[in-house]
Amino acid sequence: MKTDILSRRNKVLGKNFPTFYDKPIHLVRGEGVWLYDSEGKKYLDCYNNVPHVGHCHPKVVEAISNQASTLNTHTRYLHEGILEYAEKLCSKFSNNLDQMIMVCTGSEANDIALRMAQAVTGKSGFIATDNTYHGNTGLVSQLSARRPPIGGYSKNIRLIPAPESTHPLGGSHEVQSEIFAKNVERAVYELEKDGYGFAGFMFCPIFANEGFPTVSPGFLDPTVKVIKSSGGLILSDEVQPGFGRIGSHWWGHQWLGFEPDVVTLGKPMANGHPVGAVITQQGIMEEFRSAAGYFNTFGGNPVSCAAALSTLEVIEEEGLIENAQKIGTYALNRLRDISHPLISDARGNGLFFGIEFTDSKGQPATSFTSEVVEAMRERGVLLNSIGRHRNTLKMRPPMPFSKENADLAIDTLETVLSELPL
Amino acid sequence: MKTDILSRRNKVLGKNFPTFYDKPIHLVRGEGVWLYDSEGKKYLDCYNNVPHVGHCHPKVVEAISNQASTLNTHTRYLHEGILEYAEKLCSKFSNNLDQMIMVCTGSEANDIALRMAQAVTGKSGFIATDNTYHGNTGLVSQLSARRPPIGGYSKNIRLIPAPESTHPLGGSHEVQSEIFAKNVERAVYELEKDGYGFAGFMFCPIFANEGFPTVSPGFLDPTVKVIKSSGGLILSDEVQPGFGRIGSHWWGHQWLGFEPDVVTLGKPMANGHPVGAVITQQGIMEEFRSAAGYFNTFGGNPVSCAAALSTLEVIEEEGLIENAQKIGTYALNRLRDISHPLISDARGNGLFFGIEFTDSKGQPATSFTSEVVEAMRERGVLLNSIGRHRNTLKMRPPMPFSKENADLAIDTLETVLSELPL
Repeated sequence: MKTDILSRRNKVLGKNFPTFYDKPIHLVRGEGVWLYDSEGKKYLDCYNNVPHVGHCHPKVVEAISNQASTLNTHTRYLHEGILEYAEKLCSKFSNNLDQMIMVCTGSEANDIALRMAQAVTGKSGFIATDNTYHGNTGLVSQLSARRPPIGGYSKNIRLIPAPESTHPLGGSHEVQSEIFAKNVERAVYELEKDGYGFAGFMFCPIFANEGFPTVSPGFLDPTVKVIKSSGGLILSDEVQPGFGRIGSHWWGHQWLGFEPDVVTLGKPMANGHPVGAVITQQGIMEEFRSAAGYFNTFGGNPVSCAAALSTLEVIEEEGLIENAQKIGTYALNRLRDISHPLISDARGNGLFFGIEFTDSKGQPATSFTSEVVEAMRERGVLLNSIGRHRNTLKMRPPMPFSKENADLAIDTLETVLSELPL
Repeated sequence: MKTDILSRRNKVLGKNFPTFYDKPIHLVRGEGVWLYDSEGKKYLDCYNNVPHVGHCHPKVVEAISNQASTLNTHTRYLHEGILEYAEKLCSKFSNNLDQMIMVCTGSEANDIALRMAQAVTGKSGFIATDNTYHGNTGLVSQLSARRPPIGGYSKNIRLIPAPESTHPLGGSHEVQSEIFAKNVERAVYELEKDGYGFAGFMFCPIFANEGFPTVSPGFLDPTVKVIKSSGGLILSDEVQPGFGRIGSHWWGHQWLGFEPDVVTLGKPMANGHPVGAVITQQGIMEEFRSAAGYFNTFGGNPVSCAAALSTLEVIEEEGLIENAQKIGTYALNRLRDISHPLISDARGNGLFFGIEFTDSKGQPATSFTSEVVEAMRERGVLLNSIGRHRNTLKMRPPMPFSKENADLAIDTLETVLSELPL
C-alpha cells in the first residue's frame, strides 16, 4: 500500500520529490496535537507549526466552511472580512505598523517585502545570513543559503555569517552582537561601493532556520543602528516566531526589542489555509503600491480572511500565547535536565526548542541527530533537525501543547537517548 | 455604510488600493452565476473566471469542509489526495506532460516555469509579449508590460509586439503569424548575442491580457519552429484559457495546436481556493528539482487537493466544457448581430468574449468602453474592459452560464448601447 503510494508519487510528482523520515508517514487524520497514519498509529506532533491552534481546529474549520458556502471573491470588491481581520491583526503591532497586504504564502510576502525596500530606497542590494531560507520565489531564493539559486547568486546579494549557539570563535553575547553588526556594516559598505546600494536586511528575529541559536533581547541593537543610519529597511520575517510561538510576545521583533519597517507573516497565520501577509507603515505601502500596482487574485479573499480571523480569535480565546510561555518554560527546564554525553546545548523560546548534539571532539553529531529523529518517529513522536550541520533537534509543536504532551515527548526522548548507541 | 468601508479600507489596506467600478460593489453572497450586494441587489456575474464551476458550488464547499475537518498537512508526508488529483489532471494533457507541482497561485506557478527553463537550458533570457501580465512575483513581474517592474526591466527580458485584432498595419492571419515568429526570432538572436541566451518564451495561448485578439489554430506554428530550433522552452500560461474555458478543448495549447514544455495553471483551478500548478515532463521536472529542491508549505495540501479535485469532477459531471462551447457559440452569434457604430469587432472563444469599440476616426473608444462597463454594473451585469487601450469589453462568466444568462447579459448590453450617447 505504502509502496504503491510511493511509486504513484514518483510517477506524477517526480522521483526526486522529498519526504520526511526514512520510512515516510502516510497520514490520514489530524486532531489537536495528534496525527494518525493509515495503519491507525497515533503520533504526537512536535514538529508542525502550520496547524498553529491544533490540527483541524473546529472553530477554524467552521469559519472556512461557512464563508466558502457564502461568498469567495477578491479584494477589488468591498468586503468586511479583510477589514475586520486587518484591524485586529494590526492592533497586535506598534502604531506605525498599521497596514496590510494579504497574500497566499510566506514566500509571496517576502517577495513583496524585498521589493518594498527597493521601491522606498531606490536601491537593489540585500543582506541576509549565510545559513537561512526565506522562501521559494525566484527573487526570495536569492537569499537562500541551502543551495545556490537557479542561475546563481545575483551580485546585489550579501550573505553574512549567521549567529551560532556554539560559536567557533567563542565570545560573549555582546561580542557576537558587535561582530554581527560589523558584518552588516561591511556588507552595506560593499553594496554601496559596488553600485547596488543597500535596500534592506531580511532576517528572522529568532534565526529559526539558522539553527535557532541562543540570542537575547538587545542582540540586534548595534545592527539596527547600522541599518537605520545607512537608510536601508529592516525586513523582519516573522513566519516562524510570529503569532505568539515564542510565548512572551506576539512577534519576534517585540521580544528582541527593535522596530522593523516591514514584517512578513505566513505558515501559522490561518492554521494551514494558504495565507501570508505583509505588515508595514503607510508611507512604505503607498510607495510600493504606486510602483507595483500589486494585486493578488486569491490574497485576502473572504474565505482566507475567515480562516485567518478565526485562528487569531482561537489564539486569544484559548490563551495559547500564555500556554506557549508556561509549557515552554516547563519543557525547556526538563530538556535542560537531560543528561547525555552528546547534548551540547538545550535551548528554547516559547514552544520552539533546539537540542544540539556534539561529539566528544566538539564536532556536530549529525548522524546521531538523524538517528534520534527516526527513533522518535518509530515511538510515535514527530520532530526533525535544523542547523548548518543538522545536528540540532527541532521541537516546534502546535500551540495547544499541554504539560502531559511535553512529558510524553521528553520521556520518549529520554528513552530513545538511553537506548541509542553513541 | 459603504463610505465607512472605504475609509476603513484606506486606513488598513492603503489609500491607493484599487477597486472595480466608479461606485465599488460591496458583495455579501454568491451562488452560481449570481452575486448579491449588501443592499440586496443581484448581479449577473459575467466577469469572474475564478469561481469556475459557479460561486460557492456545494460540491466544492463540501469537499473543502470535509477535508479541512479531517487532515491538512503538507507534501512531505504521504497522502492520496495529491496523487488522485495529479493523476486525473495529467490525464487531460498529452502523454508527455505527466508530472505536477502544486502551488498556491498562478504567479508562483509562472515563477517556477521561468526557473525550469533556466535550469534546463542553463540560460537566462526570456521573451514575452509587450502587452501582457503573467503574475506578481519579483521574477514574473519582469514580464509585465503594464508598468515597469520595481528596479526596472532586467536586460535578459525581451518584450515583442503582441498580436492585435485590429492590426495597425493590417495583414492576413498568415502574415501576422509570420511577423510574430520573426519578432521572436530576432529576440532570440539578441538574447544570444547579448550573452544571456534564450531560456524560454512565456505566453497565454489565447493572449487574454493582450486584449484577447482573434488568432486561429496554427497561428503559432512558425513561432514554435523558431523556439524548438533554438533550444528554448515553450511556457504556456493556461491560467485563463485552461480548464475548458474555451469550450473546444481543456487547454489553450490544444486548441492552438502546439505542444508546450511547461504548462502553468491558476485562478479557476479550485474554484477560488488558493491553488495553482505547473505541469511538465519528467526530464524537466527532474532538472528543476535537482537545481532548486523546491518545496511549497501549503502547495498540494490535502484541502487544496480536495478543492481542486472536486472542481475537476464538477467540470466533467456537469458537462461545463460542452456548455462553454454551446453557450459560447450562441452568445457570440448574438454579440456579432449587435449593430452599433462604435463596435469594430466582436470575438469569442468558448465563454470568453471581447467586444471592441473604435470611434469614427479609427481610434480606440476607451472612455465609451468604460461608460458601458459602469452602465452595465448599474443594470446588474458585471463585466470589465481589456486590451492595450482598454477599449474591449471583457465578458468571461463562470462556466455554468446558461442561454438565459447570455440573453439577459446581451439584452442589457443592447439596452445600454442604445441609451449611451456616442
